[in-house]
Amino acid sequence: MNLLIHDGTIITMHNRKVILQGALVVEGETIVDVGKTRELRRQYKRGYEKIDAKGKVVIPGLINTHQHAAMSLLRGYSDDLPLQEWLEKRIWPIEKHMTAHDVYVGALLTATESIMGGTTTVNTMYHYTPEENEAKAFADAGLRGVVGHVCFSWRKKEDKKALRDLARNWHNKRDGLIRVSVDPHSPYTVDPEYMRELKEIRKELNQEYGSSRVPLIWHIHVAETDDETEKIRKAFKMELKEGIMKYLDLLGVLDEYVIAAHCVSLVDKDMSVMKKRGVKVSHSPISNLKLASGISPVPKMLKEGITVSLGTDGPCANNTADMFEIMKTAAILHKGVAKDPTLLPAEQVLEMATIEGAKALAWDNEIGSIEVGKKADLAIIDLKKPHLCPSYNAVSHLVYAAKASDVEAVIVNGEIVMENRKLAKLDVEKVMGNAEKVKSGLLNKL
Amino acid sequence: MNLLIHDGTIITMHNRKVILQGALVVEGETIVDVGKTRELRRQYKRGYEKIDAKGKVVIPGLINTHQHAAMSLLRGYSDDLPLQEWLEKRIWPIEKHMTAHDVYVGALLTATESIMGGTTTVNTMYHYTPEENEAKAFADAGLRGVVGHVCFSWRKKEDKKALRDLARNWHNKRDGLIRVSVDPHSPYTVDPEYMRELKEIRKELNQEYGSSRVPLIWHIHVAETDDETEKIRKAFKMELKEGIMKYLDLLGVLDEYVIAAHCVSLVDKDMSVMKKRGVKVSHSPISNLKLASGISPVPKMLKEGITVSLGTDGPCANNTADMFEIMKTAAILHKGVAKDPTLLPAEQVLEMATIEGAKALAWDNEIGSIEVGKKADLAIIDLKKPHLCPSYNAVSHLVYAAKASDVEAVIVNGEIVMENRKLAKLDVEKVMGNAEKVKSGLLNKL
Repeated sequence: MNLLIHDGTIITMHNRKVILQGALVVEGETIVDVGKTRELRRQYKRGYEKIDAKGKVVIPGLINTHQHAAMSLLRGYSDDLPLQEWLEKRIWPIEKHMTAHDVYVGALLTATESIMGGTTTVNTMYHYTPEENEAKAFADAGLRGVVGHVCFSWRKKEDKKALRDLARNWHNKRDGLIRVSVDPHSPYTVDPEYMRELKEIRKELNQEYGSSRVPLIWHIHVAETDDETEKIRKAFKMELKEGIMKYLDLLGVLDEYVIAAHCVSLVDKDMSVMKKRGVKVSHSPISNLKLASGISPVPKMLKEGITVSLGTDGPCANNTADMFEIMKTAAILHKGVAKDPTLLPAEQVLEMATIEGAKALAWDNEIGSIEVGKKADLAIIDLKKPHLCPSYNAVSHLVYAAKASDVEAVIVNGEIVMENRKLAKLDVEKVMGNAEKVKSGLLNKL
Repeated sequence: MNLLIHDGTIITMHNRKVILQGALVVEGETIVDVGKTRELRRQYKRGYEKIDAKGKVVIPGLINTHQHAAMSLLRGYSDDLPLQEWLEKRIWPIEKHMTAHDVYVGALLTATESIMGGTTTVNTMYHYTPEENEAKAFADAGLRGVVGHVCFSWRKKEDKKALRDLARNWHNKRDGLIRVSVDPHSPYTVDPEYMRELKEIRKELNQEYGSSRVPLIWHIHVAETDDETEKIRKAFKMELKEGIMKYLDLLGVLDEYVIAAHCVSLVDKDMSVMKKRGVKVSHSPISNLKLASGISPVPKMLKEGITVSLGTDGPCANNTADMFEIMKTAAILHKGVAKDPTLLPAEQVLEMATIEGAKALAWDNEIGSIEVGKKADLAIIDLKKPHLCPSYNAVSHLVYAAKASDVEAVIVNGEIVMENRKLAKLDVEKVMGNAEKVKSGLLNKL
């Protein structure tokens, strides 16, 4: 479809350029022009569906770089408990009953919520099965995604089969909407040998199914809590003297295709390794606070020039998939902790949620900003709301005052997936109904 | 009007009682019955307007215990600057041009946003003038409020006239919807002598216009930042050896009618004084983080048995009036900082936003919970949304996943002020249009 979006404030996220009374033109999947409305209206007259963005802002769709999408099924099932009790007595016992169908239903619910909140790309890590899975859910919803299969030492054989299936069936599939990642769970659940092997597998799968333009990435939890080096010591009888990143680097697994989720408990040495290897970060402030993991040294990483993107984490640790909440929390948290109000200004936080997210997923050649030649992944936000009034600075409003519910329309890969808050490809009532059904089924199995 | 709200989940906030398939009956301003739908439907047949709350939760309206409502006019005008530069170069130069009419327009915008977010009571501190003011704005919107006039040493004469006018014109007016407070700005801007005088004035005004059932309260910023004792030393040549609360206590101004906003930079001694005197706290975590003031020792205050309520602070320091954001931020922040996920569980946080807020405003005889005999201040929240699906625990969803935009109906003092997200007493377009006009006028005066 060809689109002309006109008369809006276009926040390009390319060199922080903002175009007032702006317009952009989409042909097929791609943005082909960006500029002033009066010029583009003259140039692109016929054959373009018009979207009036008056009083609205147009931004690149938000990029959520850390999710476990299917876990929406457990949203609010259990909160406010000590971590081990929460995992062992509440989450794991119910999670083990989840079927491939349940995973699909949960991921579809998260895809729905994500789109309704202006998110156009989600990086998710969960259990993959060929029949039904998160990749299918995202593709069915029209959501862009990087989909991984989480790997553990205790199920190597199963993992390897799943990884191969996932890459073959889904990498760069559905018009390039879905990409695949290799996801070692963490340094304490994946032994050193398996970690190296998973790196090798990424390389092989990338040669077979990917390319430097369409790479498979490596998605791993790192340093989520303070006791991680202790957990590694216990699990593998290893002493980590120079920090967790140095440990991973010595295994030879770190490079620019690695996205490390959390990075809460880091030492300075970790950051210099990350910088040297080009490791990217997904910062999930709400999950880190709610699970009491602590506060990631984000200002320091940013100062080091490390790419820091934003993620919601799974919906049973957050408990939403709302990137607006994440932006606001990231923007205010580090100011308050460091007692420095100049840290993480609104412009930088919006970059973290868009172009930096694209970089973190090695996808910035196609998404993350509104630029000619990039894919049309867009969110249109209505600013005519009391809580966004009066208007001074749209970027400030997006980070500090806007809500997921202010997103009016969403376009992914040139296709309108939400308009006037109605989803184009999904029946929201049915998505919710199915999730309730799955929930009841899970509770019955306990 | 008489109302029967039926078939909802009634979260009473009275002894944490939750009624499934519940109903409540309102006659005039007052809740006259609460129970199971099947019983109340039989009992209250005719003469009651019915509100179907199926799939919804009914809660006492949220109580925002610290606001500067008119400052919505400066929402997003300036962010991310060092505090003194922000105040001296940005906020104060524009604020000084605000007229009485501007204050009314700004407060009306905040009242609109508050109601749309399920807030039924707001405690606001700003500049009072008899012609137009925040009290009138709240009353016109149908919002319950405690309205104060902020006092400074440099304008004692003006202040005293304003206080008297405010109390006479507004305390316990408009069917008791509006109450009045005496608001010394802070211990560093109000000298010791004036502080004592303002305490005396509260007593006199309370004798003249209030009562023990309808008291005037005392609303003050305390210990917002670490340098407050230093500011007092500089301003009044006084050394505070035992903390700021002890200083105030020695002035004889602390009692159970004092609500202290912020309380970020406290020492243990402060807390024992607060406990002894029954001082209440308004915790504004978003403002404290965004302005880089720091993190209030809320878990410790709660452990001491101090009443801690929640506030948004003014919309140019937050930048919203959204109590759902505040609940989630309060619930997660202290867990993360203390690395203890059991702190501030959802139930407790919802109490802080309702019944504890009512206590903090010395208004818990009439509001803060759904109980027979109390005023009908209610918010009805629609849970049939993807981000609130599936349903396990309504209280968890309210604190961790719900948004202001999920509030469907709001009742204040027995009157429906919002239904299906449409305000009953205000034209939202006009409220926003007027705020934009005032904004333009202010910018022109710079």
